[in-house]
Amino acid sequence: MLVVMKNDATEAHVQAVVREIENLGYRGIPMPGAQRTAVCIIGNKGPVDDSRLLALDGVKETIVVTKPYKLVSRETHPESTIIAIGDVKIGGEKPVIMAGPCAVESEEQAFTIARLVKKCGALVFRGGAFKPRTSPYSFQGLGEEGLKILEKVHNEIGLLIVTEATDHTNIDVVEKYADIIQIGARNMQNYSLLRRAGQASKPILLKRGFAATIDELLMSAEYIMSEGNTQVILCERGIRTFSDNTRNTLDLSAIPSIKEVSHLPTVVDPSHAAGRREYVIPLSKGAIAVGADGLLVEVHHDPSHALSDGMQSLYPEQFARLMKEINNINR
Amino acid sequence: MLVVMKNDATEAHVQAVVREIENLGYRGIPMPGAQRTAVCIIGNKGPVDDSRLLALDGVKETIVVTKPYKLVSRETHPESTIIAIGDVKIGGEKPVIMAGPCAVESEEQAFTIARLVKKCGALVFRGGAFKPRTSPYSFQGLGEEGLKILEKVHNEIGLLIVTEATDHTNIDVVEKYADIIQIGARNMQNYSLLRRAGQASKPILLKRGFAATIDELLMSAEYIMSEGNTQVILCERGIRTFSDNTRNTLDLSAIPSIKEVSHLPTVVDPSHAAGRREYVIPLSKGAIAVGADGLLVEVHHDPSHALSDGMQSLYPEQFARLMKEINNINR
Amino acid sequence: MLVVMKNDATEAHVQAVVREIENLGYRGIPMPGAQRTAVCIIGNKGPVDDSRLLALDGVKETIVVTKPYKLVSRETHPESTIIAIGDVKIGGEKPVIMAGPCAVESEEQAFTIARLVKKCGALVFRGGAFKPRTSPYSFQGLGEEGLKILEKVHNEIGLLIVTEATDHTNIDVVEKYADIIQIGARNMQNYSLLRRAGQASKPILLKRGFAATIDELLMSAEYIMSEGNTQVILCERGIRTFSDNTRNTLDLSAIPSIKEVSHLPTVVDPSHAAGRREYVIPLSKGAIAVGADGLLVEVHHDPSHALSDGMQSLYPEQFARLMKEINNINR
Amino acid sequence: MLVVMKNDATEAHVQAVVREIENLGYRGIPMPGAQRTAVCIIGNKGPVDDSRLLALDGVKETIVVTKPYKLVSRETHPESTIIAIGDVKIGGEKPVIMAGPCAVESEEQAFTIARLVKKCGALVFRGGAFKPRTSPYSFQGLGEEGLKILEKVHNEIGLLIVTEATDHTNIDVVEKYADIIQIGARNMQNYSLLRRAGQASKPILLKRGFAATIDELLMSAEYIMSEGNTQVILCERGIRTFSDNTRNTLDLSAIPSIKEVSHLPTVVDPSHAAGRREYVIPLSKGAIAVGADGLLVEVHHDPSHALSDGMQSLYPEQFARLMKEINNINR
Repeated sequence: MLVVMKNDATEAHVQAVVREIENLGYRGIPMPGAQRTAVCIIGNKGPVDDSRLLALDGVKETIVVTKPYKLVSRETHPESTIIAIGDVKIGGEKPVIMAGPCAVESEEQAFTIARLVKKCGALVFRGGAFKPRTSPYSFQGLGEEGLKILEKVHNEIGLLIVTEATDHTNIDVVEKYADIIQIGARNMQNYSLLRRAGQASKPILLKRGFAATIDELLMSAEYIMSEGNTQVILCERGIRTFSDNTRNTLDLSAIPSIKEVSHLPTVVDPSHAAGRREYVIPLSKGAIAVGADGLLVEVHHDPSHALSDGMQSLYPEQFARLMKEINNINR
Repeated sequence: MLVVMKNDATEAHVQAVVREIENLGYRGIPMPGAQRTAVCIIGNKGPVDDSRLLALDGVKETIVVTKPYKLVSRETHPESTIIAIGDVKIGGEKPVIMAGPCAVESEEQAFTIARLVKKCGALVFRGGAFKPRTSPYSFQGLGEEGLKILEKVHNEIGLLIVTEATDHTNIDVVEKYADIIQIGARNMQNYSLLRRAGQASKPILLKRGFAATIDELLMSAEYIMSEGNTQVILCERGIRTFSDNTRNTLDLSAIPSIKEVSHLPTVVDPSHAAGRREYVIPLSKGAIAVGADGLLVEVHHDPSHALSDGMQSLYPEQFARLMKEINNINR
Repeated sequence: MLVVMKNDATEAHVQAVVREIENLGYRGIPMPGAQRTAVCIIGNKGPVDDSRLLALDGVKETIVVTKPYKLVSRETHPESTIIAIGDVKIGGEKPVIMAGPCAVESEEQAFTIARLVKKCGALVFRGGAFKPRTSPYSFQGLGEEGLKILEKVHNEIGLLIVTEATDHTNIDVVEKYADIIQIGARNMQNYSLLRRAGQASKPILLKRGFAATIDELLMSAEYIMSEGNTQVILCERGIRTFSDNTRNTLDLSAIPSIKEVSHLPTVVDPSHAAGRREYVIPLSKGAIAVGADGLLVEVHHDPSHALSDGMQSLYPEQFARLMKEINNINR
Repeated sequence: MLVVMKNDATEAHVQAVVREIENLGYRGIPMPGAQRTAVCIIGNKGPVDDSRLLALDGVKETIVVTKPYKLVSRETHPESTIIAIGDVKIGGEKPVIMAGPCAVESEEQAFTIARLVKKCGALVFRGGAFKPRTSPYSFQGLGEEGLKILEKVHNEIGLLIVTEATDHTNIDVVEKYADIIQIGARNMQNYSLLRRAGQASKPILLKRGFAATIDELLMSAEYIMSEGNTQVILCERGIRTFSDNTRNTLDLSAIPSIKEVSHLPTVVDPSHAAGRREYVIPLSKGAIAVGADGLLVEVHHDPSHALSDGMQSLYPEQFARLMKEINNINR
């Protein structure tokens, strides 16, 4: 249930509503909006008796929330959320391009790629320092050393940094160095990591699991938001199907589906879905055209010598072309 | 194998190559192109001894075709095929929009919708006269009566007609009335229908089966082409996956995948994939942006009273908006 | 709706009910059962006014059928159907094993394999004369010559014959020679073939499409039954999924799912699902244990020289072991 | 690579091989077998020069391991592994039945169900104390209180306990109370949890992710084994597909697929796959028949009042019937 406050309700009115909700045995979370504040009730299993709430000063009405998710729902927060980090606005007018290598390999590699993606117009640099790998014997990333390189990229090149935290240990250090903390597809239902992400001071980029429904993705975002972190960016990155022309099947219908029911900004990772660089430009154009708020793209100055996933990394000239072509797409 | 002729090779040279291929026990199919003619050898199971072919007048070289499909392959026909029907060019510069109701219900209904889609810029009118239905007890379409209405739409409104043939019987009459014969997703591997379509005098719009790989779609197109009909348009219409936010998952990566290996024009049906009209506009924009040569869209002047699939039919004003928005997409 | 007759109702009573249903504008199909006869009403779109039917002599009651399929439903026919062909009973106490090569290659090949499967206890011989092939250039079967070989196997070895009809043309000749007409997975929604199968004088073995739901399989069986052929055997043969350890994923839950809602006998084809002979014996045991009424198994005396799908054909000694092991399974 | 020792090789010989492997820059893990000891080399990226290893005393030969997983592979450990916990042998002659409620709700509930499953022949009691839940607002289990109840069940009823650890925190306490630590499907690629499980003193039951391939499941088991815990039981519990007759599609072909390439015991969870109790008995029979080493089954004395997933819990009389029927299945 949502308790919608009147336009002239004061902070004291809102606090009184929260206290009354706690008296009823639930939790009340204020959701300030552009037009009005609402207080979301969580923790109830069935209908809530709203008579005492409606009697409080400043309360306009109550609304039943029909979805299992609440804080991520457009019902509780009708305006689309814009996540602003410095000058960069994710969820705003212009799509935000996040680009870089699969893994940070060295300072030289990171700077080479960062300079070229910056020059083409990317605002965020991606690169893994902690890599979730199918095999225990594969390269697992440079760890904190990689994060320090990313921080240097941030400071010297002026790009925001998005990088993945893969567990409860490295999320502490990722939080310290990154501008956006990525939770990968395989961890989308790692609930203790989600709860920890909900306590982080940085925005979270949450990738859809490759076999997760849209509702499950939103429930995972709800885990993060229910801990207090409202800065969540969702990411479609392909799902597992029988189809074998791409590594995974990019589900671009996820974008209008999510935007219909949630206020959270949503970006697309065409590189991991395609698994082949040849398809990344057309899929990027498609993603922007369906309404994605940004892209997460793998770029490498020398893909054939990339430490991992070289097959899907764009060559610099391909990335330059991608940036030019998506500028022509009216969303 | 492909026997590539010299630029100055004559028709007699080509015929001599075809005869020699027949002497070797195979079939030879001439493939005229903008730059050169090639003769495709089909019917061989392993490598072909090309020494006698290379010795013939007018032969430039032989090329081994690496794919199981040959006539549909870009290896044998490097230029993209443009299918011209009157003034309409499918596969050319501009995407071609095919729009109309799921089923022809009456002359009045068809004309009402045809007029409105024509006004918005559609060049082809879609509408089923023979409907493949999951249940034997459902409305199966108006049959030939429906085709006559479509012919009247063609003559009086000036739209091309695409409509589905569902079996060996009704393809005869569909061929008579339609400008483009549609083979539906459930018939994509109905090989006797494909062979019959290969003997038709009209272009074929072949829909991808909802569990077919790209290779299987191309092999089905090869069935049609191997019978002599080179006018084949492919159509992505969504595949079956676990994902439940849409009826089927629209696989827009199919477009670059097909265009990489085949010269055939390819369109997208966002209506059947989405199953909900709310997603048709964004998915249409995405389809055009990834490079589709056209769209197949369901439109109804009164969706809530449509005889079938009303949930996915666009309202007239939505279709008008769709046409306007896709005009802004640079492919 | 189902009109249930009293135990002492006469044939004249039943005919009067059928006539009254026709007067109401629908079709009435008598469904004789062990205990009672019922008349199924088809062709209605909404509720039927049963007052005049209930007033007729011999009528006990009417029952609303809740499923989209009617004739295949256990609601209209509570007893499990047993299809008896000579001494062979499909759907009875003992599972019926149908075994043989993918394709009939020659009289010698067919007889060699038929003798060995007969010796091991198989009652039905399988072998394709008309093969639905992904490629137009692949071996498409021996055609009628193959059917004549199968007839000879029937006559001289004493096995029933199941073989596939792939279109409206060859079903005529398959009906003439075969004991059971197979409709393959790719034709599960070839409705004109289903209707023709519904007019056939022989039982139909209908395979589940590799992306068909159970409800769709039952609706396809309904097409056959609605034309008058009540002898339908269903077959699970694997579905398309992301999983790559087998060619298709054998869905053994299909057996209890079908038996819950339908009275039709259901068999399993482990060979096409597995795509590898190593898994055929365990999957056969699993199929019998979940309650399948039989198996369709590929066997070849010399798999490495089989004309098609040799990889999945059992060696003779493997088939002998399979027959021994499934005899130990209590269903 | 695998260094196979002679039958009469001593422990000192083995240790010398391990040291030499470390000198080469890799890790060497001894794998004692019934017939021979082998030392598995991990950490190499390409071929290993085995000349110095072959020269060591007690070394018989080296074998190249062709799979990405090594310790779980049957190549390195040809005999099937039997995990013995007290008298219970998982992977031996008889399938081991693990049964109990979805969640531990109270001491009374746990004891009621434990007594009934023990009486029917189950050897292991299942029940969740930490529940991974899609919604942050759902009941998340009794936590350590639940574990203490399980320990009491172990001590007073004499059943082994299997219960899930969902993160790095609760695995410490689960390890203390449980006999077998379960890693759930959603955590199959939670690599830090897998590494921690690899350091545990108790056997691990690792469930296949609902979109994981067999190779990925085995790679996750490799994570556990590479940390030193060789006691790993695998579990098939259904995969996500388009098919809607069950919650997930139980992939029984996983059993022969795993057993072909791995020596680890493998059990089946039919309850979570089916999502409906009606299908649990036939699927259990199927699982035993294909060769599963055991079952994980949900049972509740009062399913309609179960705290979660009541729809799939067996009634006591159904579980009694299941135990009787699987006793009749010859594997």
